[in-house]
Amino acid sequence: MSTGQPEAHDAVDVIRTKRDGGEVPEEALRWMIDAYTRGYVADSQMAAFAMAVLLNGMTRTEIRVMTDAMIASGERMSFSGLGKPTVDKHSTGGVGDKITLPLAPLVASFGVAVPQLSGRGLGHTGGTLDKLESIPGWTASLSNEELHEQLRDVGAVICAAGSGLAPADKKLYALRDVTGTVEAIPLIASSIMSKKIAEGTDSLVLDVKFGSGAFMQDIDRARELARTMVELGTDSGVATTALLTDMNTPLGLAIGNANEVRESVEVLAGGGPADVVELTVALAREMLTLAGQPDADIEAALRDGRAMDSWRAMIRAQDGDPDAALPTPHETHVVTAGEAGHVTRMDALPFGIAAWRLGAGRARAEDSVVHSAGIDLHVKPGDRVAAGQPLFTLLGHDESRFQRALAALEGAWAIGQDAPEATSLVRERIID
Amino acid sequence: MSTGQPEAHDAVDVIRTKRDGGEVPEEALRWMIDAYTRGYVADSQMAAFAMAVLLNGMTRTEIRVMTDAMIASGERMSFSGLGKPTVDKHSTGGVGDKITLPLAPLVASFGVAVPQLSGRGLGHTGGTLDKLESIPGWTASLSNEELHEQLRDVGAVICAAGSGLAPADKKLYALRDVTGTVEAIPLIASSIMSKKIAEGTDSLVLDVKFGSGAFMQDIDRARELARTMVELGTDSGVATTALLTDMNTPLGLAIGNANEVRESVEVLAGGGPADVVELTVALAREMLTLAGQPDADIEAALRDGRAMDSWRAMIRAQDGDPDAALPTPHETHVVTAGEAGHVTRMDALPFGIAAWRLGAGRARAEDSVVHSAGIDLHVKPGDRVAAGQPLFTLLGHDESRFQRALAALEGAWAIGQDAPEATSLVRERIID
Repeated sequence: MSTGQPEAHDAVDVIRTKRDGGEVPEEALRWMIDAYTRGYVADSQMAAFAMAVLLNGMTRTEIRVMTDAMIASGERMSFSGLGKPTVDKHSTGGVGDKITLPLAPLVASFGVAVPQLSGRGLGHTGGTLDKLESIPGWTASLSNEELHEQLRDVGAVICAAGSGLAPADKKLYALRDVTGTVEAIPLIASSIMSKKIAEGTDSLVLDVKFGSGAFMQDIDRARELARTMVELGTDSGVATTALLTDMNTPLGLAIGNANEVRESVEVLAGGGPADVVELTVALAREMLTLAGQPDADIEAALRDGRAMDSWRAMIRAQDGDPDAALPTPHETHVVTAGEAGHVTRMDALPFGIAAWRLGAGRARAEDSVVHSAGIDLHVKPGDRVAAGQPLFTLLGHDESRFQRALAALEGAWAIGQDAPEATSLVRERIID
Repeated sequence: MSTGQPEAHDAVDVIRTKRDGGEVPEEALRWMIDAYTRGYVADSQMAAFAMAVLLNGMTRTEIRVMTDAMIASGERMSFSGLGKPTVDKHSTGGVGDKITLPLAPLVASFGVAVPQLSGRGLGHTGGTLDKLESIPGWTASLSNEELHEQLRDVGAVICAAGSGLAPADKKLYALRDVTGTVEAIPLIASSIMSKKIAEGTDSLVLDVKFGSGAFMQDIDRARELARTMVELGTDSGVATTALLTDMNTPLGLAIGNANEVRESVEVLAGGGPADVVELTVALAREMLTLAGQPDADIEAALRDGRAMDSWRAMIRAQDGDPDAALPTPHETHVVTAGEAGHVTRMDALPFGIAAWRLGAGRARAEDSVVHSAGIDLHVKPGDRVAAGQPLFTLLGHDESRFQRALAALEGAWAIGQDAPEATSLVRERIID
C-alpha cells in the first residue's frame, strides 16, 4: 500500500506501466525503489512489478535509473584519494572459480588498486571469502579505514562487502528469491552492478559465465546479461567490459576451499592448471587495459614472483599467515576409470553439488563450511586415461557424506574412445 | 514463504510454471489457493503469480481448478431441496443498470427460483442492494433459512451475499487491487464465478457489458471475459450463457437509487424505457430457456400484472413496503439544450461519475449513499431536442455537489444536426 510520506507517485500506476509494456518515467521509478526500501510500497506490489519486469523487460534508461536508486538507498564509497586507478572484477559464479585469489594480487602488482569486496558461497558455487578463510588467521572483515590503507599500501584487498551498500538490493533480492523473479535480467544486472558501482571503483571487468555450472546455462542469456551490465556500468560512469566464459566444466583441478587456495598459490608461483592461468591472464589483461596499462607483461609478473609477493602482502595485511599449513581432509575417496579412453565430459553442476554435499558449501546463509572438504580432479576432459586410473578424489570430514556426493556424480563424467572437440574457455569479449 | 502445514508443493515452482507459460498441475494449483487463503503462501508470492497470469493467461482447465479451489475455501449452498429450478443472473456492472430489480420477480413469476445474491456499489457503478434500500423497511440481510423459505414461497430473492462464500476471492481481490492485477481475465472470471457457483444455482445468465460505462471498455476483451465465464460455468456443472451488451450510454432514464426503483416499477407495470424493457426481456428469455421454459410469454407477464405481483411479494417478504413513497431529492438542477438538433451522444462513464458525486454512490466501502441522489435523463441519444429543452436533471442533497457533478459532465453529451446511427443494445449471445 503506497501510504505515508512523499507520495509523489502511485505504486499501482508504476506496476501498470511496466505491465502494459511502457517505460516507467524516471522520477516514478526512483520513487518506487525508495518507497519500497522505506516500506511504503508493499512486498506484494514490488513482487508484481518484478514479475512484470521479468516478462516485459526494461529499457536501458530504466535499468540505469533503477540501479541508481538502489545505490542511493545506501552509502557510496570513493577511492578518489588513493592517487592510483582502481579496478574491480566480478564473476557471476561457477564451480572451481578461484580466479579472484590469484587475479587481485597479480593486477595489484602493477601498481593498480584492486578492491575486491566479495561474498560467501550459497549452494553449489563457492564463495571467495570461504576459500580465503582456509588460511589460518585471515580475516574478511575490514573497516573502511583499513580497506583504504591496504589499497594504498598493498594494492590488493579481498574482503567482505559492508551491509551499508545498496540495502534496497538486499531487500529486493530476498523478495525475488521467494517470488520466482530471480531470473529477470534487468534485476540481476541491477543487483550486481548497484553494489559494484556503490563501491566506488573506476572500472570493472565482468566474468559472465554460461553452461551447466553457471547461473545462466544458456550462452544467449549470459550474453544478454553481460551486455546489459556493460551498458549499465558505462551509463553509470564506471568503465566496464565483460568476458563470456565457459562453465560447463569445473575450472582447474580443485573444487572446494583449502584446495582452491593451494591451486591459486600454484598459479601465483608460475604454475597451475592451464585453464586457471588462461582465465586469470585474460581477466588481468582486461583490468590492466582499463587501468591504462594495455601492454603490461602479465606473464612476467607470474614468472618472476611479483604477483606472489603481492599475494603474501595481501594475506598478511589481513592477519593471515601465507606460510601456514592449510587444513587437510580426514577422509578421502578415490574414483577410478572403469575403462581406458578419453575423458569426454566432466559436468560442472554435479561436481559443484557433490563438493557442496561434502561440506565445501552451505545450504543456508547461517551454515558454516568445512574448509578441507571438496574434490580434487586428477584429469580433465580431453585427457587419456587407463582403466583403473584415478579420476578424482572426494575430500571429506565424515564418510557418511561420500555416498550423497557420489549420488550427485552419477553420470556426471564420461569416458569415450574419441577425444572431445576442444572448446575455448573465453568465448566472447563484450564492450559497449 | 511457503512454510507450515501441508507443504505438498512449492509456491516458487507454481509461480515459475506460470511465468514460463506452462500449465500448473491441478494439485499444485489447488494447494496454492488453499495455502494462500490459510496464510502459508505470502501476498508477495500470490502477487507475482497474479501478474504472471495476467501476462501469460491460463488454460480452461487451470481456470476451472482455481475457481473450484476458491469455492472450496468457504461454504457452498444448495437449493436442491426446493423442487424447482434455480437460475441466477450476474451483470458486470454499468451506469443505470437496475435490470435485476424487474428481472428477478419477472422470471420468478414463471415458477422459477431466482436467488440474486448481490453486492453494494463502489465507484461509478451502482449496487443493487443500495437501490432497493430506497424502499422504506426493506432489508438486504436474510438468514440462510429465510432465503430458502422466500425462494420456496415467493421465488424471487435479492439479498446480500454472505461473507462465507469463497473467502479466498475476498483476499485475492484485495491483493489484486493494490498490485495492478485487477484486469487479468482468468482472475476476473474466477472471482465472479466462484461466488456464483458457491451459491448453488442450477444455471446462470451473464450480462457482460462493454463500452465507456463498463468495467471492460473494449468489446473484444468483454467477449473474452464472457466466453471464459461461460466455459467455466459449464465446466463447473452450472448451465451458463452470456449476453454481450452495450454500456456506452446509460441504461434507461434513471441513474441513482430511488429513481431507478421507480423506473423498475414502471417496467413491471408494463411501461418503462424501451432499452430497459428490451434488456430485461432478453435476459429473462435466457434465464427461462435455461430453466426449461424457452417459449414462456414474457411480455404477457409484464402486461397482466404477474411480474408486479411477484415484485410486491418479494419486497414484502423482506420487510419492505411496496406502496411507500420513495425518498425525493432536496435540490434539483436542470440542464437544458443549448441548441436544437439530435442528441448524438450521452457518455455513460461521466454520467455515472456525476451521479456518484451527487451522492448516489460511494468511494469507500464504509460510506453510505444518498438514496434520493442521482440523475434523471429526459432524452436519450437519437431524440430530437429544441433549444432550451431540458436534457437531464441532477438530483441532490446539497447544492455544493452540483458543481462537481457538472464538471464531470463536461463534454459528456453532444447535440448535432444528424441523428446518430442506431446501435443494438444486445450485441452477441455467447454459449459454450
